[in-house]
Amino acid sequence: MQTFLKHAKSASRIIATLDPKTKNDVLADMAGTLESQSERIIFENQKDLDDAKKNNLSSAMVDRLLLNSKRIAEMAKAIREIASLKEPVGRVLEGWVVPSGIKIEKVTIPIGVIGIIYESRPNVTSDTAALCFKSGNACVLKGGKEAFHSNAIIASLLQEVLEKHNLPKEIISLLPDASREGVAQLIKMDKYVDLIIPRGGEALIRFVSENATVPVVKHDKGVCHTYVDKDANLEKAIEIVLNAKCQRPSACNSLETLLVHEAIAKDFLPRMKEALLLTGAQIKGCEKTHELLNVPLAEDEDYHTEHLCNALNIKIVENMDEAIVHIAEYGSSHSEAILSENYTLVERFLNEVDAACVYANASTRFTDGGEFGFGAEVGISTNKLHARGPMGINDLTTYKFKVYGKGQIRA
Amino acid sequence: MQTFLKHAKSASRIIATLDPKTKNDVLADMAGTLESQSERIIFENQKDLDDAKKNNLSSAMVDRLLLNSKRIAEMAKAIREIASLKEPVGRVLEGWVVPSGIKIEKVTIPIGVIGIIYESRPNVTSDTAALCFKSGNACVLKGGKEAFHSNAIIASLLQEVLEKHNLPKEIISLLPDASREGVAQLIKMDKYVDLIIPRGGEALIRFVSENATVPVVKHDKGVCHTYVDKDANLEKAIEIVLNAKCQRPSACNSLETLLVHEAIAKDFLPRMKEALLLTGAQIKGCEKTHELLNVPLAEDEDYHTEHLCNALNIKIVENMDEAIVHIAEYGSSHSEAILSENYTLVERFLNEVDAACVYANASTRFTDGGEFGFGAEVGISTNKLHARGPMGINDLTTYKFKVYGKGQIRA
Repeated sequence: MQTFLKHAKSASRIIATLDPKTKNDVLADMAGTLESQSERIIFENQKDLDDAKKNNLSSAMVDRLLLNSKRIAEMAKAIREIASLKEPVGRVLEGWVVPSGIKIEKVTIPIGVIGIIYESRPNVTSDTAALCFKSGNACVLKGGKEAFHSNAIIASLLQEVLEKHNLPKEIISLLPDASREGVAQLIKMDKYVDLIIPRGGEALIRFVSENATVPVVKHDKGVCHTYVDKDANLEKAIEIVLNAKCQRPSACNSLETLLVHEAIAKDFLPRMKEALLLTGAQIKGCEKTHELLNVPLAEDEDYHTEHLCNALNIKIVENMDEAIVHIAEYGSSHSEAILSENYTLVERFLNEVDAACVYANASTRFTDGGEFGFGAEVGISTNKLHARGPMGINDLTTYKFKVYGKGQIRA
Repeated sequence: MQTFLKHAKSASRIIATLDPKTKNDVLADMAGTLESQSERIIFENQKDLDDAKKNNLSSAMVDRLLLNSKRIAEMAKAIREIASLKEPVGRVLEGWVVPSGIKIEKVTIPIGVIGIIYESRPNVTSDTAALCFKSGNACVLKGGKEAFHSNAIIASLLQEVLEKHNLPKEIISLLPDASREGVAQLIKMDKYVDLIIPRGGEALIRFVSENATVPVVKHDKGVCHTYVDKDANLEKAIEIVLNAKCQRPSACNSLETLLVHEAIAKDFLPRMKEALLLTGAQIKGCEKTHELLNVPLAEDEDYHTEHLCNALNIKIVENMDEAIVHIAEYGSSHSEAILSENYTLVERFLNEVDAACVYANASTRFTDGGEFGFGAEVGISTNKLHARGPMGINDLTTYKFKVYGKGQIRA
């Protein structure tokens, strides 16, 4: 493992200073290679599909695994889109001259070696490799074992392209030991690995967070709230809540608990319930909601739950302060919204609620790299430091200070 | 511990949204209180000095512990300087409108609860508390046990000021259990603590890095190099090397290994040696240096050493590439310099060397918050992520995205 990661580290120094044109040429070649070799990819993918059948994987899981020429074309398209992003390395974030006369520039640089742990979809292998490559990083990928053959052929095709361009193939590699023990080793190799991004279930993320000595950017769960204030536009509120809850309930930015000001509850909630029920939503509520809407009582546990399905808690609150306290207690600091026309309350909510994304009068479903205009999706960080919320390719860089002198010494 | 940290977390939400004027008034009051209560501080400090004598602490250690009215006035001055810094919270880093029409602002916010672990000097207690307060953070401080009484009185005076202003005293607190077990608990409390900054010896930093689940910003050692190229201005080079090594050898940004191009070694090194010997420097060298200068041979271990005294290794290299390889192998990614008039080599060095600060034709001693113009010193980070190199008060903030809509839902 150590020798393997040492090679990745050396490779990271080469990719770090590659000029943009070369990187884009290599990415174009990678996209073309995936398309021209799609038969080989489909052949290997079939082995994973056969194993999936043997292991009785759900049809949803099998669908996530499946690669066909259309999906491979989409993978190639994603790589070309990543190539077209603005160069993330070498951006001057700030620059100034200090009294001693030295000129200081704060300049973006690649992070180094990034370890990424993810699950079934094999397209993540090429997406992630391309994002790391464009941002000048070497990557060590650890996909799900159910996609073993698919990930292996994709990675080896990308490596062939690297070698064709006289670049070390270790710029992109799969973790050789993909067991839990392999992961446990990887996340302690802070001498060689600069960042770990775990994307997956809670158990994986907890394991990585608790055991890593390498810095971790988590993609953890979203328990998101929308607070409907007494001064909300109720027509808009119904549309926004429907969108936040029902447009894609499995997404981390979808709504889990609706908080409603008591002054409008009687007017708003029956209409909201009707609209929700048309989508098949399952509603639980607090004591007051239970009485008003005749829905089952929500337990404390429900308020902590990321449902990942069309289920919703409703809680009636006395005022915004109670809503903020509830969010601080149960929220996962992901995406939180207030719906109100009251200027002062909106500003207070946006300032006082601690979350990666705080919304006024919009659906929390906008928490997404694409919707934010970042281009290709790196993920949505639930970290508070380094990168928070939707991550663009710029979040795969860090910085150094370049200092230009003409002989200065410190007095 | 959990109850204690829960209080710190609640307090952090109050300080987070305090307006700048209030924060500055409180800081002014803190500075005034330290001055007006200096007798009480000196009285408590005497207890630490008595203990130090009993425990046979070195005179250097005793001097670091000592507080007198002059030093207390300096502590007050430092707080006033921190108050005068530009408000770090609420800076809009970026802002844009996306096609859906939502307006997105990336805005700085406090980090939350910051745990700071440090050693003897008691002024760090007030400096750090003021820096955290100005940047809207609650802090949990863990000073050295040798400064127990001094830290306790300083913290309790600051807490009195907080209470006078109707603020929770838990905004600034000392870790109740200051033992190694207390620290071990603190660094795993990621539910309540958002960042740990360990400032101290290698053993402490290793312990924290290996055991923390809270993110850590390290202040680790500096093994810094200066490479004198064949195209360097040798007069300037002598001055810069002397400054980098001898101005304050105990600093982390001071020079440990001088790398010299072989083409100028015979001309440069005898003059350099003469200048260094006048400062009492102890020199070791590589095989070639050993022959040329008649100095002891440097072992591999020497190249890994942060000397913290006026000792230096000299290595003659074939060219800049060998210098860069040496730095990658032995450097601690802190501060690295090239001295050369060759444009292309300078740019290559600044781009290819991975360090927080890379210098052209200046002394590495400039790696310092004050010299960089950041004002009060938070420290010098050896992390690669979140904050790298000299840390200003802005590095005690993170960000959130504020999203302003007018009813938008995701398509």
